[in-house]
Amino acid sequence: MRTLKIVVEYDGAGYHGWQRQKGLLTVQQALEESISRITGEKVTVVGSGRTDAGVHALNQVAHFKTGSSLAPRNLLLGINSLLPLDVVVKELQDVDELFHARFDVKSKLYMYQIFNAPFRSAFYRNYAWHVYASLNLIKMEEGLSFLKGAHDFSSFCGKKKDDEFNCIRDIKDARIEKTNLELIRIYMEANGFLRYMVRTIAGALVDVGMGKRAPEDIPLILDAKDRTKAGIKAPPQGLFLMEVKY
Amino acid sequence: MRTLKIVVEYDGAGYHGWQRQKGLLTVQQALEESISRITGEKVTVVGSGRTDAGVHALNQVAHFKTGSSLAPRNLLLGINSLLPLDVVVKELQDVDELFHARFDVKSKLYMYQIFNAPFRSAFYRNYAWHVYASLNLIKMEEGLSFLKGAHDFSSFCGKKKDDEFNCIRDIKDARIEKTNLELIRIYMEANGFLRYMVRTIAGALVDVGMGKRAPEDIPLILDAKDRTKAGIKAPPQGLFLMEVKY
Repeated sequence: MRTLKIVVEYDGAGYHGWQRQKGLLTVQQALEESISRITGEKVTVVGSGRTDAGVHALNQVAHFKTGSSLAPRNLLLGINSLLPLDVVVKELQDVDELFHARFDVKSKLYMYQIFNAPFRSAFYRNYAWHVYASLNLIKMEEGLSFLKGAHDFSSFCGKKKDDEFNCIRDIKDARIEKTNLELIRIYMEANGFLRYMVRTIAGALVDVGMGKRAPEDIPLILDAKDRTKAGIKAPPQGLFLMEVKY
Repeated sequence: MRTLKIVVEYDGAGYHGWQRQKGLLTVQQALEESISRITGEKVTVVGSGRTDAGVHALNQVAHFKTGSSLAPRNLLLGINSLLPLDVVVKELQDVDELFHARFDVKSKLYMYQIFNAPFRSAFYRNYAWHVYASLNLIKMEEGLSFLKGAHDFSSFCGKKKDDEFNCIRDIKDARIEKTNLELIRIYMEANGFLRYMVRTIAGALVDVGMGKRAPEDIPLILDAKDRTKAGIKAPPQGLFLMEVKY
């Protein structure tokens, strides 16, 4: 059996998230079906982690095991020819049989995209959170700076997943970028993310950008270790998994 | 009766173009239905020109006449609340009753977007032409430069529209831009465009970028005044109407 690592891009708008679910269309299922048709075996694709319904990925990483002897390039082309057009395998390579897409993750980079304009966008409706009120970027950056480093992110976490022993995560890098259009992008890289963590942080930072909260409220929310303190979570369509590092 | 000018953004992926057509969903129809429901009258929306099925607009301009006395801001909000999410009116203002969105056009700016990478894009599938082979930008720019100024563009024109007396158009500005992603954007501003003109030029420039033709073939194609010389036209989903100037 070979172990293959794949890098996958998907537009999450049409999917009920990454993880296979009975009766619902998911990215994992789309990949497993296409790969199985090429290799002729039942295949299980193991992702670096789940993404929720409507969330996108530019470079999700996954692995699978196969007895197929097809060359990587032919496998890649074959899989892509069968995948729906909103999912694409960008890279495929043989890796050590011990490689595990989830357990071996060193860090992940997420981006949360906000469309900040007084009118809707016809193009970003599935790819950003539309915030009408003008946002103060300086204050958002100030708020974000309090989150860098290792903290207990209980206040920014949804229901715990089964495999989460604690809520301490280390945000190695965090920054905000404004494009020449009306787009604001919040980038966060961490050794791991809790469920809804990026979206809950984005929600709190938008409150700060609108002046509903002060930047200095962010460390207070952290210290409270209480999910009810952080406010609403940002909607899924603004979230992009950008990179997974090993 | 008031005359109102509107600036409209639309994602053309779900529409059979701008122009009203019996039994088909078009942008003009979506606008007329929403406006009529707000003003309570039958309304005709006159665009700066048609866009074909699948073509997008960031700033299409149109006008309509109404007896409604609603304030512009209320009209704008009301229309947008009824429009589908892939169409949005970005501006609405009272203008001189003699203003005509089509006849008064001074120039239009179009952008043609190419996704140039060896793999598909999950995100640009409806917003760019996917060209696998690596394109030589320098040669494309050289080819494009021959088109600047006033020329008879018969070789780059589809079937003539009823109101086209001749095929002479003046390209005031033309340039190519490459983003840090795999996107190549061809911008062209002219006093007017013939049917399929931008897409036929984009098709010829991609041939040049792939080395199938030399940049110096472009003036020869122009001189031939023969549509069969220009090769294939680029697909509609890469085309964006960026701006209409009056």
